[in-house]
Amino acid sequence: MKASSYLIPTTKDDPQDAVVASHKLMLRAGLVRKSSSGLYSYLPLGLRILKKIEGIVREEMDAASALEFQLPILTPSEIWKESGRWDKMGKEMFRLRDRHDSESCLGPTHEESFCVLVKPMVRSYKDLPINVYQIHTKFRDEIRPRFGVIRSREFTMKDAYSFHLDDDSLDRTYQKMRTTYRRIFARLGLTTIPVQADSGNMGGSASEEFMVVSPIGEETLTLCDSCGYSGNIEKTPVVVVKNPNPKKEEEAVVETPGQKSITDVANFLSIRPENCLKAVALSCDGKYVLVFLRGERELNENKLKNHLNTNELRPMSQTELTQVGLVAGFIGPGFVPSKDLLVLVDSLADWNEAYVSGANEFDKHKKGVVLSKYFKSDEVQVLDLSQSLPGDPCPNCNSPLKAEKGIEVGHIFKLGQKYSKAFDITVLNDKGKATTTTMGCYGIGINRCMATVIEQCNDDKGIYWPISIAPFEVCLVSIAKNPEDISKIEKIYSALKASGVEVLWDDRDLGPGFKFKDSELIGFPVRLTIGKGFLEKNEITILNRKTMEETTHNFTTEENFVTEVKALLENLRKELAAKLT
Amino acid sequence: MKASSYLIPTTKDDPQDAVVASHKLMLRAGLVRKSSSGLYSYLPLGLRILKKIEGIVREEMDAASALEFQLPILTPSEIWKESGRWDKMGKEMFRLRDRHDSESCLGPTHEESFCVLVKPMVRSYKDLPINVYQIHTKFRDEIRPRFGVIRSREFTMKDAYSFHLDDDSLDRTYQKMRTTYRRIFARLGLTTIPVQADSGNMGGSASEEFMVVSPIGEETLTLCDSCGYSGNIEKTPVVVVKNPNPKKEEEAVVETPGQKSITDVANFLSIRPENCLKAVALSCDGKYVLVFLRGERELNENKLKNHLNTNELRPMSQTELTQVGLVAGFIGPGFVPSKDLLVLVDSLADWNEAYVSGANEFDKHKKGVVLSKYFKSDEVQVLDLSQSLPGDPCPNCNSPLKAEKGIEVGHIFKLGQKYSKAFDITVLNDKGKATTTTMGCYGIGINRCMATVIEQCNDDKGIYWPISIAPFEVCLVSIAKNPEDISKIEKIYSALKASGVEVLWDDRDLGPGFKFKDSELIGFPVRLTIGKGFLEKNEITILNRKTMEETTHNFTTEENFVTEVKALLENLRKELAAKLT
Repeated sequence: MKASSYLIPTTKDDPQDAVVASHKLMLRAGLVRKSSSGLYSYLPLGLRILKKIEGIVREEMDAASALEFQLPILTPSEIWKESGRWDKMGKEMFRLRDRHDSESCLGPTHEESFCVLVKPMVRSYKDLPINVYQIHTKFRDEIRPRFGVIRSREFTMKDAYSFHLDDDSLDRTYQKMRTTYRRIFARLGLTTIPVQADSGNMGGSASEEFMVVSPIGEETLTLCDSCGYSGNIEKTPVVVVKNPNPKKEEEAVVETPGQKSITDVANFLSIRPENCLKAVALSCDGKYVLVFLRGERELNENKLKNHLNTNELRPMSQTELTQVGLVAGFIGPGFVPSKDLLVLVDSLADWNEAYVSGANEFDKHKKGVVLSKYFKSDEVQVLDLSQSLPGDPCPNCNSPLKAEKGIEVGHIFKLGQKYSKAFDITVLNDKGKATTTTMGCYGIGINRCMATVIEQCNDDKGIYWPISIAPFEVCLVSIAKNPEDISKIEKIYSALKASGVEVLWDDRDLGPGFKFKDSELIGFPVRLTIGKGFLEKNEITILNRKTMEETTHNFTTEENFVTEVKALLENLRKELAAKLT
Repeated sequence: MKASSYLIPTTKDDPQDAVVASHKLMLRAGLVRKSSSGLYSYLPLGLRILKKIEGIVREEMDAASALEFQLPILTPSEIWKESGRWDKMGKEMFRLRDRHDSESCLGPTHEESFCVLVKPMVRSYKDLPINVYQIHTKFRDEIRPRFGVIRSREFTMKDAYSFHLDDDSLDRTYQKMRTTYRRIFARLGLTTIPVQADSGNMGGSASEEFMVVSPIGEETLTLCDSCGYSGNIEKTPVVVVKNPNPKKEEEAVVETPGQKSITDVANFLSIRPENCLKAVALSCDGKYVLVFLRGERELNENKLKNHLNTNELRPMSQTELTQVGLVAGFIGPGFVPSKDLLVLVDSLADWNEAYVSGANEFDKHKKGVVLSKYFKSDEVQVLDLSQSLPGDPCPNCNSPLKAEKGIEVGHIFKLGQKYSKAFDITVLNDKGKATTTTMGCYGIGINRCMATVIEQCNDDKGIYWPISIAPFEVCLVSIAKNPEDISKIEKIYSALKASGVEVLWDDRDLGPGFKFKDSELIGFPVRLTIGKGFLEKNEITILNRKTMEETTHNFTTEENFVTEVKALLENLRKELAAKLT
């Protein structure tokens, strides 16, 4: 491709509303343009990258015997009502009415659609397992679209759904997808960590997210350097280490005027937050719940939601607190029990330790509060409800955990029978008995992968693409102007093209500095500079964009030169492939 | 690909709601499934075909130097208001509001979006011409979706938009696209006729549709066997042949009780419709218009719309007619003129001939009505407003025209400056002067192409795909069950695959009759039958699906056999390529 007949609208300055590297660089390198909030247009260079990512995902999915489909984006409300998600999906789902006033949504995910489609095609256990997928546009009306294509409202997703006779079969496909995902991400040049994750509103028993460690990540991972454990903090179990000598203290009420938060109280009384007892009062789908935690801990809302099987959590209002007899800011054991209030205790809170807690009176706390004095252990549920902290023991090997931010690029789920039951997907087993199938589902955000690669592969000059998804493998920069020189370059260009090298020849009428900057910004893995040295003595300078190493080569024939370039590209491919093993 | 791990959900019986061949066969062959009204899911076999069509379109567009983009499907209402189409597009456009109550639509076409995107990228005449395209999902809320994917509500379209400094440049790209389109359709195996077309609500000066003649077509074409003229009937000019001896007759009122239509009156008075004068009274965007036509002719609403530059036509109501002094069913020259009523006369109506017309009195007509007695030729506009009829003189060579139904698979337009003006897309010309660009646009319905190929390529057994877009080139049907035989077939299968032949091996545990029927229904170009002859004496039967010719071949080695199959496929490719020249 000649740059003069291509579109390379690079810009020098950082765009105003972009805060992360990938967003800035995608705009500056002319890969995308913003169309409106959370909506992006792909320009030719950007689309080439996107299509290459799609290609790799497709190849690996096909190799894993998954079958590619394409389903409508518009999905009728009826099927969402059947699964119970029409209301559950809330405002994230774009909804519309057609000219006949029928309600639809723009599919944010396709469990329902695939269930309806696959159901009549699987009748016997012989038709299973089946793993179906598509690579298609999805929509989510994000509250706050951000980071460019990392969190956008319209995006390309690979979503796969597998159907099985039993859990063993589901487990085999789940493991196969796990391996496939690692291959896909490695081929894209991404280093991912699969972490135990929460299944959110997808339902189901097990799920893992594929995370790329990055300071801009919206998820928090807990990692163990010692045994390799990794988890999403939402799901990381907190290990209880028993205190052999629980603190003892006489019970006494203390005046704590205006001291409501744990930090306030600890400061005021010169104690550590760990010595306090925190009370969190919530309305969970309209049900009142009071949770006691050790003072330094935060409630992990996700654990609570899963335990109660609720969707919506919110703090109880002042009025609601009063109604059940609680004093806002000063709640502690000893309040008057109410049948409308469920009490839960985090397992980290020691049953025999003396804590400082609210005294259930305005502006008063109480010292020496011991839980076992107030609650009977068989009347109150003790659960793991707190958020993990760095330094907590690894749930696997007890070494201290560390925390990192991560970007989720893929997610695999064991859905179980949630959808197969809702849509009554049954097959006859080998004994002729109707059996409800079980399901898995597996997603990859294609555009997000593209941005995440940039987050991992950029420097002060711009992007350096892994060879597998670079928009072109080679950028040929020439500055010749007279026809004779140009025809000599044309030969090299044609020879490269003919040998299957993807080459962009920057033949634009611009200065060399400008072209060099563009090629480094866009990030072609290899740059060939054709200047005087070439025209006078068959000398070409080769730049490895990633290492920025430049070497000068002399060659006798074009074939000779092409061979050298191909060898270089082959090396880059091998380097990348080494990550696969 | 082995059929046992693929999905081939063929059905024997015609689906109930399918009336045309392509719709029936796409469902029966397991290429698509209906999801809801006007919405279809593509199954693996169908998606392979769709992707191959996309591939051919992409290759040819790229070869014509067009640049591929991908724009959001969701387009904000603002840009549609800027072009004036937010209201004009009416109910065909799916509209929705997001969580912030911003209005968007699902793009039914992308002139507006591409204008906004391209505008900042073209500043100088040096940046032009540029031809940008995408292959992406489009949405139209059709009143009556039908014929399967031929008229659906969600479909894949290739839409291209070109920007130019002047009309000459636009014309060059328009001609290039015309050639490209003929190449694309020929490669798909489609015989198309480019016809002069009306530009509809796209605006612009010239447009051609690429039509495939088919009885299920929704468009009517006028064709001239003599000179090759072709036009959409919406746009076909009607040539006036002067009557050298116009009929003369005394004017006289006749009682015609209850005879309102031309047919009624002609029958009642035993004359021919041609001897009557038809009056059509319409409200055009709220303006009243009365058109006189020769009795046997229908008004071509499109010609009228274009002349008046209006969108909405509807018959005037009884009340409206009375208001401007017209008597419904009995209108004729001699009515009391009204300044609120525009009178137009079709050019076929002879100015000096005596016609029978309404007498402007209830239940009365008038004989001997001559237009020139009632109207001054400089006061009334005489225009070509009637629909062409078979047998009309060709506008090019005067030979009689014939009419055919046609399916529109592509459309090219010269848009002119409609959108470049609305979005103020100007560049500096070579003298540094700001110049408004001019535009072209070019569309191909990808799914519709797939269905149209089936309309052209089917017989009583099913589909016969052109080799270029067949889901697999070769179907290998085997009925062996013992491991030794199977491993022998496996060798042939692997050798074919290794040599680049796309082969589906029907290794399913089904009877031969079932497999034969499936392969003929789905329509793989070549079928290889591996039965006893193969296992005993290396004999393979080859079926050419299109001709249904079967030949038996003996071979010595696998390579020998592969070479033979490849030669056969090469021949099929050459046959198809012959259509290109």
